[in-house]
Amino acid sequence: MAHTYSIGVDIGGTNTDIGLVRNDGKIVTRRNIPTNKYFDIDIYLKDITDIVKDMMKENDIENIEGIGICAPNGNYYKCTFSGATNLNFKGDFNVQEIVSRYMDVPVVVSNDANAAAFGELVYGGGKGMKHLIMFTLGTGVGSGIIIDGKMLLGSTGGAGELGHVITIPGGRQCGCGLKGCLETYTSATGIRRTALEMLENNPSYDGVLSKIPAEELTSKHVGDAANAGDPLAIQIFEETGKVLGLAMANACSFSSPEAVFLMGGPVKAGKVLLDPVRKSFAENLLFVYKDSVEVRVSELPDNDAAILGAAAVIKSL
Amino acid sequence: MAHTYSIGVDIGGTNTDIGLVRNDGKIVTRRNIPTNKYFDIDIYLKDITDIVKDMMKENDIENIEGIGICAPNGNYYKCTFSGATNLNFKGDFNVQEIVSRYMDVPVVVSNDANAAAFGELVYGGGKGMKHLIMFTLGTGVGSGIIIDGKMLLGSTGGAGELGHVITIPGGRQCGCGLKGCLETYTSATGIRRTALEMLENNPSYDGVLSKIPAEELTSKHVGDAANAGDPLAIQIFEETGKVLGLAMANACSFSSPEAVFLMGGPVKAGKVLLDPVRKSFAENLLFVYKDSVEVRVSELPDNDAAILGAAAVIKSL
Repeated sequence: MAHTYSIGVDIGGTNTDIGLVRNDGKIVTRRNIPTNKYFDIDIYLKDITDIVKDMMKENDIENIEGIGICAPNGNYYKCTFSGATNLNFKGDFNVQEIVSRYMDVPVVVSNDANAAAFGELVYGGGKGMKHLIMFTLGTGVGSGIIIDGKMLLGSTGGAGELGHVITIPGGRQCGCGLKGCLETYTSATGIRRTALEMLENNPSYDGVLSKIPAEELTSKHVGDAANAGDPLAIQIFEETGKVLGLAMANACSFSSPEAVFLMGGPVKAGKVLLDPVRKSFAENLLFVYKDSVEVRVSELPDNDAAILGAAAVIKSL
Repeated sequence: MAHTYSIGVDIGGTNTDIGLVRNDGKIVTRRNIPTNKYFDIDIYLKDITDIVKDMMKENDIENIEGIGICAPNGNYYKCTFSGATNLNFKGDFNVQEIVSRYMDVPVVVSNDANAAAFGELVYGGGKGMKHLIMFTLGTGVGSGIIIDGKMLLGSTGGAGELGHVITIPGGRQCGCGLKGCLETYTSATGIRRTALEMLENNPSYDGVLSKIPAEELTSKHVGDAANAGDPLAIQIFEETGKVLGLAMANACSFSSPEAVFLMGGPVKAGKVLLDPVRKSFAENLLFVYKDSVEVRVSELPDNDAAILGAAAVIKSL
């Protein structure tokens, strides 16, 4: 069967990755340009379309399904990423409109977590599913929700902010202004916070985490220490897993998905985090969903996930 | 413009209400039969189709869009309410299949809360909306979620169990086996629980609620007392509102609805409950949803809500 192709563009504050993606999830070729060298959205998008045209020519591809763009502040309904604080582009703009000046191709714009969820659905472990939830653990906690094979966008386009579900009422202060948000406990930053709290509460502990200056301590250190058997690190992940498993179980009472996926830095610690997550998930899941929902780790390769997510979003049209 | 019609059947343990509903939400005529007098699903459904045919004849209606059924344990995907513990019908059955023996008409089956949400969307305050969430406060707390104008069913058909979202981790024991579920605080039963706790904690209180024997105390008493200015009753609703508003705000981070609707006995208390609910909702809502979502009370008349909800579900086909 003949292959089809699409373009995935992952816009970060520093770099923009552009990939030509085959329908089986293979990234045929990729390029990147420095986002922060551009100040004019028109020139920036023109350069991207030039690269897209080059990629198509080099690979003898006449048609692509479209260009999927994943960007900070990405808004699917408005086809924009206007107002993203870490990008240089000022004012309001519509990406489809600008791209149309240079290339006749459908464009969709998404935020990171929605793209991750859709990437998992189209190219990853969610293939064949209709309902899934993706939690992305990074500096914050993002989420993308797939309902009946479609991205859940809601009335504003901003549905799926499960990182800001108040999981522990009256709990930790979150940057969003609320208290007890999931991300204050289970993002990389939240895990660091738990680690610092536990170090303070266990002055007699003299393991590896106590040797790292507080300002340098990261969730990666905790993961490495937990995998080396450090008891405090293991306890930190047990606490993290309790909160995350609870939030994941709660999310199931909303949409009854076939799977809840996890991705992001802290997830790479593996069993030391995932075992407590699964335990808490099982304990907190409403009985009616037992045996209908799995806890899974994203199957997209780290280096490909963002481009695949962006490219996948074009399938939502 | 010519009217269209559908049938709503609301199955309760004692009575079954059958209504002929016009597309503008007017119930043209209604009848009821005693559910608990029937033990054979076949005879029961045949009698219902006989009533439907009579209603159509009496009103000179040649065609109906279908029969929507709202029943305990109602499963949309399977078109069944097999296994409902408060009904006499034993074994597995498919309602569409049985009805088809007597009448050539589409049939859908739903549970109460989903029907309530869909009824609000089609005939009530949700007209014109695409995204809404309905919380029904009764013996328990049910919920129905509308996404892009469709009922959220999820992979199992059992999505939207927001009454069992763990809102207060480690909180009150719920009948479902979990602890801290929303319904343990905000159902009529949950409000009663709060009242009994507060009465115990305030032995010097000698207001109207202290005169009611504990076993007879209901959320209705609390509502009446709060509306008469009783300070303890007001405090009970403030606590209830805090938890409910929090859960409603959390739900918005899932689907970003245009409105969150409330219905059920406790809601009839009015401002004494709704003011604390709105306050807590505003305090706990993620800033990105501010001004995009309203807290509303169901606009369906009490006596019509169940039939209208059931009839509305046929519009989901």
